[in-house]
Amino acid sequence: MKRRGLLIILSSPSGAGKSTLARRLRDWDPGIRFSVSATTRPAREGEVDGTDYHFVDDVRFKRMVKDKEMLEHAHVFGNFYGSPAAPVREAIEEGADVLFDIDWQGAQQIQKSALASHVLSIFLLPPSIPELRARLESRGQDGPEVIARRMQRSWDEISHWDGYSYVLVNDDLDRTEGQLRTIVTAERLRASQQPWLVDHVRTLQTEFEEGA
Amino acid sequence: MKRRGLLIILSSPSGAGKSTLARRLRDWDPGIRFSVSATTRPAREGEVDGTDYHFVDDVRFKRMVKDKEMLEHAHVFGNFYGSPAAPVREAIEEGADVLFDIDWQGAQQIQKSALASHVLSIFLLPPSIPELRARLESRGQDGPEVIARRMQRSWDEISHWDGYSYVLVNDDLDRTEGQLRTIVTAERLRASQQPWLVDHVRTLQTEFEEGA
Repeated sequence: MKRRGLLIILSSPSGAGKSTLARRLRDWDPGIRFSVSATTRPAREGEVDGTDYHFVDDVRFKRMVKDKEMLEHAHVFGNFYGSPAAPVREAIEEGADVLFDIDWQGAQQIQKSALASHVLSIFLLPPSIPELRARLESRGQDGPEVIARRMQRSWDEISHWDGYSYVLVNDDLDRTEGQLRTIVTAERLRASQQPWLVDHVRTLQTEFEEGA
Repeated sequence: MKRRGLLIILSSPSGAGKSTLARRLRDWDPGIRFSVSATTRPAREGEVDGTDYHFVDDVRFKRMVKDKEMLEHAHVFGNFYGSPAAPVREAIEEGADVLFDIDWQGAQQIQKSALASHVLSIFLLPPSIPELRARLESRGQDGPEVIARRMQRSWDEISHWDGYSYVLVNDDLDRTEGQLRTIVTAERLRASQQPWLVDHVRTLQTEFEEGA
């Protein structure tokens, strides 16, 4: 019997190290696939369609939602973001885990969906607000108003921390990376993640009945 | 806020390496306490009262059950076995994890008790029945009838493997030990196991509101 993959949801306020840690997790296990979000916001310089995001227009996005082709979606700062369902369904049927870099709204929608029993949800907290602000400011090009808006949104995200199974304070990237690996490794040892055990126990039963 | 300890239930058929792994887990983290079972069976040579078991008579055992001083209890091969509740309650209030070396009947009782939300249940499967039989036989002193009875009981135990959260096939002690460590480490990263995060988030909120 084949294992179905996990839906690994990684949420955090912007600036808490989520993207770095997502990359590191995939470097550790290249079998983990990223769920590439669809969005209606324009591509920024350097962003690649299909890798960073699927860039789509409003009409296409709304049609996908209507046709239930999105696992979750949200409206943020005037743009739509959503996780296309098809690649996720395909991946988990093949036994591959899928990593979602989404916010609490998306996490809640997936945790209420038919795939809820396959969700592993992890939230990253920043060590402090000044540190979070410093990381946002160090990105350079944004003015104080944009920073203030981002900070407000960061707090909104943080305030939903307790809707997640696992919560890590990211005060050290290496340590947090180790914790993420530990969590994923442990979750894969759940009985529900090892359907082949049914065959193993069947073999044990045969051996037992044959008096082996 | 203080963490409450986990009830780590380790079950397996006799001969699957459970005692060795329990000892190794405590060598790794000496903070883990063993739940010492009470039993009405006579002490075997070398067994120490209060360390291997609490050896009690039938009257005392039944009184403890009646007074709800047992978290779980079972009747096996003519003797009673049970886990005294008081040391467990004390340990988890102090934030210490408690390891239970008990069978599926005991595991089910604890998983239905008021402490169910603190249970981490792990089952060890043997790689094969011949290997399990060989380990039982290698202990020496038992005749074929006793071995047959033990094998029957082992199969009874194995047949309840799917009532556990985590299941490991113990075909390599070092590997299984590593998996046990991983599971315990991950479970301690659950939001519910880190109550101090409530204080951390409160601090973040204060920092945010003060515009830090």
